[in-house]
Amino acid sequence: MANTKRIGNDNSGISGLLSNTIAGITETDRQAWQKAQDRLNSLTKPPGSLGRLEELAKQISSITGTLKPDLSKKLIIVMAADHGVVDEGVSAYPKEVTPQMVYNFLAGGAGINVLAKHAGADVVVVDAGVASDLDPVSFFSENKNKKPSVSEKITGRPTKKDISSAGSFINAKVAYGTSNIAKGAAMTKEQACAAIEAGISIAQNMVQKGYGIIGTGDMGIGNTTASSAIAACVCKTGVAHVTGYGTGLDDSGLAKKIEVIEKALSLNKPDPSDGLDVLIKVGGFEIGGIAGIILGCAKTKTPVVIDGFISGAGALIAELLCPACRDYMIASHSSVEKGHKIMLEKLKLKPLFNFDLRLGEGTGAALGISIADAAIKVMNGMATFGEAGVSEKNE
Amino acid sequence: MANTKRIGNDNSGISGLLSNTIAGITETDRQAWQKAQDRLNSLTKPPGSLGRLEELAKQISSITGTLKPDLSKKLIIVMAADHGVVDEGVSAYPKEVTPQMVYNFLAGGAGINVLAKHAGADVVVVDAGVASDLDPVSFFSENKNKKPSVSEKITGRPTKKDISSAGSFINAKVAYGTSNIAKGAAMTKEQACAAIEAGISIAQNMVQKGYGIIGTGDMGIGNTTASSAIAACVCKTGVAHVTGYGTGLDDSGLAKKIEVIEKALSLNKPDPSDGLDVLIKVGGFEIGGIAGIILGCAKTKTPVVIDGFISGAGALIAELLCPACRDYMIASHSSVEKGHKIMLEKLKLKPLFNFDLRLGEGTGAALGISIADAAIKVMNGMATFGEAGVSEKNE
Repeated sequence: MANTKRIGNDNSGISGLLSNTIAGITETDRQAWQKAQDRLNSLTKPPGSLGRLEELAKQISSITGTLKPDLSKKLIIVMAADHGVVDEGVSAYPKEVTPQMVYNFLAGGAGINVLAKHAGADVVVVDAGVASDLDPVSFFSENKNKKPSVSEKITGRPTKKDISSAGSFINAKVAYGTSNIAKGAAMTKEQACAAIEAGISIAQNMVQKGYGIIGTGDMGIGNTTASSAIAACVCKTGVAHVTGYGTGLDDSGLAKKIEVIEKALSLNKPDPSDGLDVLIKVGGFEIGGIAGIILGCAKTKTPVVIDGFISGAGALIAELLCPACRDYMIASHSSVEKGHKIMLEKLKLKPLFNFDLRLGEGTGAALGISIADAAIKVMNGMATFGEAGVSEKNE
Repeated sequence: MANTKRIGNDNSGISGLLSNTIAGITETDRQAWQKAQDRLNSLTKPPGSLGRLEELAKQISSITGTLKPDLSKKLIIVMAADHGVVDEGVSAYPKEVTPQMVYNFLAGGAGINVLAKHAGADVVVVDAGVASDLDPVSFFSENKNKKPSVSEKITGRPTKKDISSAGSFINAKVAYGTSNIAKGAAMTKEQACAAIEAGISIAQNMVQKGYGIIGTGDMGIGNTTASSAIAACVCKTGVAHVTGYGTGLDDSGLAKKIEVIEKALSLNKPDPSDGLDVLIKVGGFEIGGIAGIILGCAKTKTPVVIDGFISGAGALIAELLCPACRDYMIASHSSVEKGHKIMLEKLKLKPLFNFDLRLGEGTGAALGISIADAAIKVMNGMATFGEAGVSEKNE
């Protein structure tokens, strides 16, 4: 039974939410999948001729248990956190960029804001473990020109009306960044559970607010380093095979990054069969948060669209914690970041597209949500052969 | 000079519109491309991290000569026609499906209607050479349940307000289907020019109405046969390499189709360097119309999004007539139909995605238009590093 998988080395220190969520995740609905197949075959097109759109429509039907899921409200959740390993010089950008980009998300100026708006999705930004105090109220009162479009949204947990594509803020800070994995574990077990449970709570809360499809996103200087460490460990492959240039390292920077990850893995020895242990030893708070979003979506039978490399690391953790959650995942894209293909193979997920993206933030997930939306519209918006009076195939 | 390329074996019988259009197509704007590159590099993301979206934004800037093209009005033009070669038993569906699907487009029940609406695009359906008389007014008055959503739209050339995603109708019938290419040329030179010029006129007319981006689409039972013949001829490859199952042939049907195409090519001997000759000998009226749309878009500096295999055949004809028009094309997807990849390689176009589509109608182009739209929004909607107060890369 997938649901009874052991969590961590023992269950001490694991609160009820995580274990209850995992226990509550069921298989997707095969009957709804078949009904979707029948419906698609009745539509005015050669059977199967809409390819992956038809596959998506069937998957989403099997996830939600209905042929008419309400995807009118769409959401991207961007998990932000910092990484102690940045002290080792593994990133091309300074650490301050993490909070700066959070404010940019809240002001609506980042790539994810534009692409979420394009897809008709709202954006929620979560401080899962940024290394500085984020104070959107003060920031936007001091920087009037960067005023967010909805002022109420920055005062606490967003209400339905507060959320928009300009980004709403949730404070779920676990700690001021992870510890440096080149010198020890990234976080404690309690912190790992807190990060995952933040993701679960937020996902469940957002589903309650009416969101029918959720995309994952990330922000965190240094987080490709943690994600490569997770990939190397879980996919049991050499670090160099899953470590790329991140946001723009040069070759010597890449060599340094690989060396740091190898050191972190040999020092911390994460157990590749134990998602919680991997997260504790070499993970990140945003990665734990993303794993939590995936689990929360699976628990609530909500399709979850996975972004690129960092979200893929979160998906690896989620899948280790509960293999059944895999069927709730839609892989949006294949990233430029080396190692992402290996992650997707491990997860047995086939990405929808490859646009050579390497930004993160949920940008690929936003485009993926738009395609998922199109797939459901096709299934429910097209006429059948009977309705349209169109002749079927020659016998 | 690309623009002075010889058209047909001689210029007799070629009216001014086609030759003037070709003569008026210029290279795209390299300076606008560079300005777009500079703008993209100033935005709050690592340079190039939005991959193909950035490439698209630059291409569209170079096509339109501006960083802020108005893509608010989007259009899919579906060219419909019949093929005499269907008498040879090369299609899984009966010929009557062509007019039936035209009415389905006009009623808003087809795949293209759903996907165009998703992309925010309107649909225009053109009778370029359907083998029966299309009479939408009578059809919809006799079939009240299939009433199109905008009744005025079926009374003639659509006005601005008439066009919607439910499909508007234009009668540009060149003839009642092509002649059987297994027994002679598909059409006369005058007919080939008329089909291309219909596409040019419609594209120019729609650009005048404010459409900023146009996608190509097709409907025509038997048109994968004509398209495979064009591909084999122009790409100089064996027929079997570019001939697929179409809408759903079995293996013996495919063998028959290949045999018929081989016969058509050896009988008609189209000149692979002469786009008009290829169209005359083995083409289709909708394929000529699509070539015309591409030329009309290039002439008016409008990005044109190419759908799958049939649109690819139209693109091959357009490119032979005027190589410079290639830079105005955006290849939306890589189709299931065997031979499409070979076409795209010949055209040096890299498709945006592969969703295993094989429906035609412009369905892939509609999704491609949505991605092009997203690319332009990224370029103009994101904050710069300066605006957002975000630190740039470490030196």
